Amino acid sequence: MNGAERLIETAAGHGLEVCFANPGTTEMPLVNALDTAPGLRAVLGLHENVCTGAADGYARIAEKPALTLLHLGPGFANGLANLHNARRAFSPVVNLIGEHAGWHLAADPPLASDIELLTKWAGRWTRRSASPDGLARDMTEAVAAATAGRGGVASLIVPHDLQLAEAPDAPRLPLRPERYPSLDPNLVDAAASLLAGAKRPAFLLGGNALHGEGLKSAGRLAAATGAVLIGEVGFARMELGRGHPVVRRLPYFPEQAAELLAGFDAVIVAGTRLPVSFFGYHDMPARYLEGRSDVCHLAAAEEDAEAALEALAQSLPQRASGAAPPSPEPPAPAGEGLDAAGIGKVLAAGQPEGAIVVLTAVSSAAPYGLYALQAPPHTQLALTGGAIGEGMAMALGAAVAAPDRRVINLEADGSGAYMIQALWSQARTGAKITTIICSNRRYRILEIEQERARTDPGPIAADLTRLDDPALDWPGLARSLGVPGEVAFDQAGLARALQKGLETEGPYLIEARM
Amino acid sequence: MNGAERLIETAAGHGLEVCFANPGTTEMPLVNALDTAPGLRAVLGLHENVCTGAADGYARIAEKPALTLLHLGPGFANGLANLHNARRAFSPVVNLIGEHAGWHLAADPPLASDIELLTKWAGRWTRRSASPDGLARDMTEAVAAATAGRGGVASLIVPHDLQLAEAPDAPRLPLRPERYPSLDPNLVDAAASLLAGAKRPAFLLGGNALHGEGLKSAGRLAAATGAVLIGEVGFARMELGRGHPVVRRLPYFPEQAAELLAGFDAVIVAGTRLPVSFFGYHDMPARYLEGRSDVCHLAAAEEDAEAALEALAQSLPQRASGAAPPSPEPPAPAGEGLDAAGIGKVLAAGQPEGAIVVLTAVSSAAPYGLYALQAPPHTQLALTGGAIGEGMAMALGAAVAAPDRRVINLEADGSGAYMIQALWSQARTGAKITTIICSNRRYRILEIEQERARTDPGPIAADLTRLDDPALDWPGLARSLGVPGEVAFDQAGLARALQKGLETEGPYLIEARM
Repeated sequence: MNGAERLIETAAGHGLEVCFANPGTTEMPLVNALDTAPGLRAVLGLHENVCTGAADGYARIAEKPALTLLHLGPGFANGLANLHNARRAFSPVVNLIGEHAGWHLAADPPLASDIELLTKWAGRWTRRSASPDGLARDMTEAVAAATAGRGGVASLIVPHDLQLAEAPDAPRLPLRPERYPSLDPNLVDAAASLLAGAKRPAFLLGGNALHGEGLKSAGRLAAATGAVLIGEVGFARMELGRGHPVVRRLPYFPEQAAELLAGFDAVIVAGTRLPVSFFGYHDMPARYLEGRSDVCHLAAAEEDAEAALEALAQSLPQRASGAAPPSPEPPAPAGEGLDAAGIGKVLAAGQPEGAIVVLTAVSSAAPYGLYALQAPPHTQLALTGGAIGEGMAMALGAAVAAPDRRVINLEADGSGAYMIQALWSQARTGAKITTIICSNRRYRILEIEQERARTDPGPIAADLTRLDDPALDWPGLARSLGVPGEVAFDQAGLARALQKGLETEGPYLIEARM
Repeated sequence: MNGAERLIETAAGHGLEVCFANPGTTEMPLVNALDTAPGLRAVLGLHENVCTGAADGYARIAEKPALTLLHLGPGFANGLANLHNARRAFSPVVNLIGEHAGWHLAADPPLASDIELLTKWAGRWTRRSASPDGLARDMTEAVAAATAGRGGVASLIVPHDLQLAEAPDAPRLPLRPERYPSLDPNLVDAAASLLAGAKRPAFLLGGNALHGEGLKSAGRLAAATGAVLIGEVGFARMELGRGHPVVRRLPYFPEQAAELLAGFDAVIVAGTRLPVSFFGYHDMPARYLEGRSDVCHLAAAEEDAEAALEALAQSLPQRASGAAPPSPEPPAPAGEGLDAAGIGKVLAAGQPEGAIVVLTAVSSAAPYGLYALQAPPHTQLALTGGAIGEGMAMALGAAVAAPDRRVINLEADGSGAYMIQALWSQARTGAKITTIICSNRRYRILEIEQERARTDPGPIAADLTRLDDPALDWPGLARSLGVPGEVAFDQAGLARALQKGLETEGPYLIEARM
């Protein structure tokens, strides 16, 4: 068995099932090795950021890592932006990077570069394999690093000569991923006393407080105390809709977020950091909870919020809340047109039970968040790290992780245009993904920033926010990449197109002309 | 004048004329500042690798840097692969990267990252601006670093608060780019005596030995000594065709390159490194000239090959060569079909005088190199660093640098698919670019590697080299991005389509179905 086969065998032995790949010459032994591991599936991407974004989406749903297979420094560089999002999502990902043979690298051939600078930027763990004997251990430790705690990005660089070398059989090493750090019981007590004296409490939630048992505990706490539940802006995964606790999302813009949080007299933060605005503006708040004594940071982003909330729920006296249970805010009024509210309304009305909704649009996704509270129960995935253009790739990964669920990608045209290549992999895998492009033909978020800064853009600045010259023909793009699609011009048309997309066996794309 | 305006004013003052931009919120003051500098043009890209690839192509033709304007770490990460190519091309590029305000960065907001890891990977010079007073100096030193010697990649990181701060008037700082290091006269003498005793001499050329005065000197030397001229595999810029000296390109595969070089009894290397194969194979040569005493490394890649060749030409006795002047090799025979030879033949026959031909296809571009010797005089740009997918962006930059010349991009489908977004910028700028996609619907180079390694790929490995499921509809893709196009099925059809493309005012795309 050669080194490449040993690596793949080890990964499969630890339960990895998918490899998102864009390989090159230095990865060919690894490519060949994929055929030797039953149960490990390969998905080809036309660009590396498809592979890494898919790995992120896969990890959020499957709750285990995928492999990526990437080509040297430049190929890995192409996948960095979505690894940034994966890092911020605490998604477990194992990158396998082919490298020149050790004896060749010293000649500094054209594709050579200092790969470790990039892997350090991308994640928490890097190793360059140094001997065939160590490959099984290297892969085991990569998987352990990726799955420790809440999860993270691990990168293993494997020189070509080691992939080809005979790699002796090695005893199967157990995975020993570190568990979450243990909770501080003082914080649970502090949160409980804060809640006991509060009239208008709130929970600001992230991580595993937004899905599964963590969300159930949060719901019980809300019912018991009348607290409002708020999700972090860039959440990795949230469960929402009928039957789930009502969670509203913290607003993106700082003045709105700060105003919301100022209305509470106790804020318990669990599974996320103390909130900070996406961007800093010199005349606006940035660290919304700074200096407040009525805040308890019960569990940090990398900690086990689910366990913390469960402990807090158990510590409270079993009583009904004096406050009325929080009810969902009314959604923004939507007229008949395809503005962001109209699109959100149609989507929430048409999405099936158990859908996975990928929400990476910046300016166009906010209204949907309120309509979604009335929708059938579903899972939402958001943009965690702000690196634009992940939606189509994330949707691909989610669909690979959950082939029986419908994936809906609510995508902007500006961000969608970054990585349309992902549509091809959606078609190739027959993934059940319906994409809705909120087509306003501009970088609307930049126009909003101009308005907020009260600047009057000159012609060059205005030109840099416009996508209408030429206009992108979204159904044409999708068709050319193997995905059928259509344009919707109004809410009725969008509703019909959405239904058609959801009935289609594979992917479908709808351009919602705003 | 604020800091952003001061930076842009300084760049324009040093003669920079173009900014390839994909900005975000942290760059908005810079975006607005672009309207304050007359003569500085902005070109929007839908993805950052369009911007950096265009900057590389622009620099190779304009022989001066363009600005890029990129968004924080993740936006810069998206542009890294083509900066790798630019670095290997010694192309001057100045990256301007917006960063969070200093007071905001400490909160580690979602888009924060260690940008310097990436800028160090990408190029030779990095600075993070630290005060408004220093911005003019920072930009001057960035331009100086980019234009020193043969050229390189410089990256300036500018926090948002400094862009907004009042930046006092500063005396215009002169650019003092370092000149090339001075030549070693001993090497000129050594090359001259090597040539004097040689029967079958050759020059292996790169850098400025492949165009302009450097190439003319090389041609005089070839005529005087009977030497064969060979261009490096990944050349940045080469002039070729009728009236230019005959230069053949070093073969890509090591066994062919080594065999060619073994046939000479003197090899003078100028403007490039001692040659090394793109990839290392355990059973093949990699450093072709290692250990030979009949080799003179007259000028390294970063040195002034033009001056070295001129000095060598002057040092030789003025005599006609005893050997016959080298004549071009006959091109590969081409049948009627659209294989690589057929495409090369049609292109060489149809290209106009003064064309710029961008050649980044891996397996499909080699035959064209021989046909091109018979074509009208033209400029070729190749892939220097091996980072796949640069062609469409490089063609955009070349067209922006030379609006009066026709640009032809001979592109593969595999590499073209990486960054089809560049077609949109081609349409937006009305660039006179005709793209020929060599559509074999596979990563042919990987299949060749499988054949060379005598491996019999299993179904997963075979699947990872195939692009036919679904097939990409190239004219459809182009049209959807604003570029008209068509499919050609045979040589006559390709010739007609090429003529149509060359008569079209803006860009045009032809899928040559292989």
